[in-house]
Amino acid sequence: MSKFELVREKLDQAVAILEEQDVDLWLTFVRETSQVSDPCLDLILGFGMTWQSALMIARTGERVAIVGRYDAPNVEQLGAYTDVVSYDQSIREPLLAHLTRFDPRQIAVNYSENDPAADGLTHGMFRILQGLVEGTPYADRFVSAEEVIGALRGRKSPQEIARIREAVRATEAIFEHIGQRLQPGVPAHEVADWFHQAAAERGLGLSWARDHCPTVTAGPDSPVGHAMPGDFALARGHLLQVDFGVEQAGFVSDLQRTWYFLAEDESEPPLDVQEAWTAARRALEAGRAALRPGARGWEVDRAARETLTGAGYPAYMHAFGHHVGRTAHDGATVLGPRWERYGTSIKGVIEAGNVFAIELGVPVPERGYIGLEEDVLVTPDGAEYLSDPQQVLWCVG
Amino acid sequence: MSKFELVREKLDQAVAILEEQDVDLWLTFVRETSQVSDPCLDLILGFGMTWQSALMIARTGERVAIVGRYDAPNVEQLGAYTDVVSYDQSIREPLLAHLTRFDPRQIAVNYSENDPAADGLTHGMFRILQGLVEGTPYADRFVSAEEVIGALRGRKSPQEIARIREAVRATEAIFEHIGQRLQPGVPAHEVADWFHQAAAERGLGLSWARDHCPTVTAGPDSPVGHAMPGDFALARGHLLQVDFGVEQAGFVSDLQRTWYFLAEDESEPPLDVQEAWTAARRALEAGRAALRPGARGWEVDRAARETLTGAGYPAYMHAFGHHVGRTAHDGATVLGPRWERYGTSIKGVIEAGNVFAIELGVPVPERGYIGLEEDVLVTPDGAEYLSDPQQVLWCVG
Repeated sequence: MSKFELVREKLDQAVAILEEQDVDLWLTFVRETSQVSDPCLDLILGFGMTWQSALMIARTGERVAIVGRYDAPNVEQLGAYTDVVSYDQSIREPLLAHLTRFDPRQIAVNYSENDPAADGLTHGMFRILQGLVEGTPYADRFVSAEEVIGALRGRKSPQEIARIREAVRATEAIFEHIGQRLQPGVPAHEVADWFHQAAAERGLGLSWARDHCPTVTAGPDSPVGHAMPGDFALARGHLLQVDFGVEQAGFVSDLQRTWYFLAEDESEPPLDVQEAWTAARRALEAGRAALRPGARGWEVDRAARETLTGAGYPAYMHAFGHHVGRTAHDGATVLGPRWERYGTSIKGVIEAGNVFAIELGVPVPERGYIGLEEDVLVTPDGAEYLSDPQQVLWCVG
Repeated sequence: MSKFELVREKLDQAVAILEEQDVDLWLTFVRETSQVSDPCLDLILGFGMTWQSALMIARTGERVAIVGRYDAPNVEQLGAYTDVVSYDQSIREPLLAHLTRFDPRQIAVNYSENDPAADGLTHGMFRILQGLVEGTPYADRFVSAEEVIGALRGRKSPQEIARIREAVRATEAIFEHIGQRLQPGVPAHEVADWFHQAAAERGLGLSWARDHCPTVTAGPDSPVGHAMPGDFALARGHLLQVDFGVEQAGFVSDLQRTWYFLAEDESEPPLDVQEAWTAARRALEAGRAALRPGARGWEVDRAARETLTGAGYPAYMHAFGHHVGRTAHDGATVLGPRWERYGTSIKGVIEAGNVFAIELGVPVPERGYIGLEEDVLVTPDGAEYLSDPQQVLWCVG
């Protein structure tokens, strides 16, 4: 299935979602996407635009693309829009003509306070749009498209799931390859270089920005999180945690793996490390057990979070999970706590066909950081692993 | 000079621009930049953010970064902000505390109807920001930062100019290399592959999206503009036009080159092709002559446009020029006609230190398309070439 076929598949899905959510028209309004690109374009177009462009998907099934003259050939070649209208000087006339023809009760546009993946309309473009429809009946019919986009992005088709699974497999192969090269004394930034090389050799992209894909947390002094890998060297008696993912055929993975470097006199990790590992694994499994159709995002987070804190470990300061697909943080429902910065994204309902990365971590004093992250598919019966989960802490002897 | 030093250089420049434009505070407000990234981040940060982040640059010279816990180490490492404040649950409290302390008369934020490069604030983030300051004196002090950003982005430092010049040189070397391989029968998409290979072999990125960098227009039936290279084959008696640029060390080039494929019985291009080439060159030079400090964008376009139409050729249906720098369409003033879709971007005033790509083209019936594009630096005396301009049509024998 080609990229263009994937786009046509998503457009068919979009029409069904508009019907289901009782929305007449979904309008994606973009320009010069090399500067700021609406993440929805990847779902409904598959390439960028240069001039102001209006992609209109109607509940009736019609799909109209109003685009600049030089962008039109690409959209025509895609074969996904029933009508490709091109213009030279201004989008105003064709845009208003088609709005009037559709006469929608609601015009869903791409802004969202809760979901970054549904927030591709810039404020400047919103103001332009307001200016274009000023004085028409459509000026006060704009609503947020966040629920349309969330459903569209979150419901992965079999083909999308297959591609994510392949990206996961490719990532696991890289983890295994690099695991064999690890030894004390290597600085974190060199480990990061190895991951970059391994991805490049296999023709793979990275799941997120190169400067912190992977993150490499080596020992207790290395900063945790989205930090760039630093000079901290791998050392005996320390933990090494790596958060990494690759992009393959437009889809990505997001995994964490953790190693322990045995001290000279050790044959297995010390008790504090083993206990922390077991607690982290149990908390991850508790979250996975709660991840099933009908659950709310925050309920899944709570199950993992309370298991971890109940075992006496500090709460992780991030969300337990997020969608994975075309991007590593793939929008829509977040499996996170009810903190203000998550907005309403954590109130979303889990659906079969969703794919999530689930993750948590535990710092171990004087040792470093244990991080677990797996990719899972929600089925009617629960969440099944797409990754081969890390069941035991890997030791470097 | 490292990337971090370039960022610190731009921040110093930003403070001076706030003073010059009488603006108290410039606020860049972003989140999850892997989904939608504000193009300004490249100027004032150099990497992405995950949580909601407020980058505040004050006319007083203070630079405060309020960022999520896991993003903080990277910002601290950058060493460009006088104060790095991190939070876990909500940005509200530190944001309001610092706003109150600065007590700005204006808060310039990143939206613009005219300049895509100054329009990185999404509508959802604008709404969040409104919610955060609701009920404070700051709720109605937001203004567009487009002039701040335009000046900051447009005034290239010597180091920035040097990097663009290097990207131009690298591009010219690729044009020369591929020019030697051209022969009739090769399809346009294969020519595009050669450019991709040449860039990859030299460790260079592309200036814009891979699917139309380069664009390859082969003969009269190939679509012109931002179209993806198709199956049209190079043929004798036809023109070949390529629009291409590379990214090197964070800066890009944007050039067009045109070849003519001599027919079996020709020793030079036919008269219609030669005349069109000469008219295009003259129009480009007329535009370049008008490109000097103090001129308005539309005046430069008009000089080129009227020269071309005065010679009896059709007007090009795009702008004559655009800034080039960190991106191929580098925001700020556009050298374009007074068409609605260009908004006020074409009213900007040219400054010394600006770098533009200037371009135009002429279709030749039954032959194909002649495209010219050069990169130039505006000096106090006028516009000097950064590229080695294509003076004559290149012929393939």
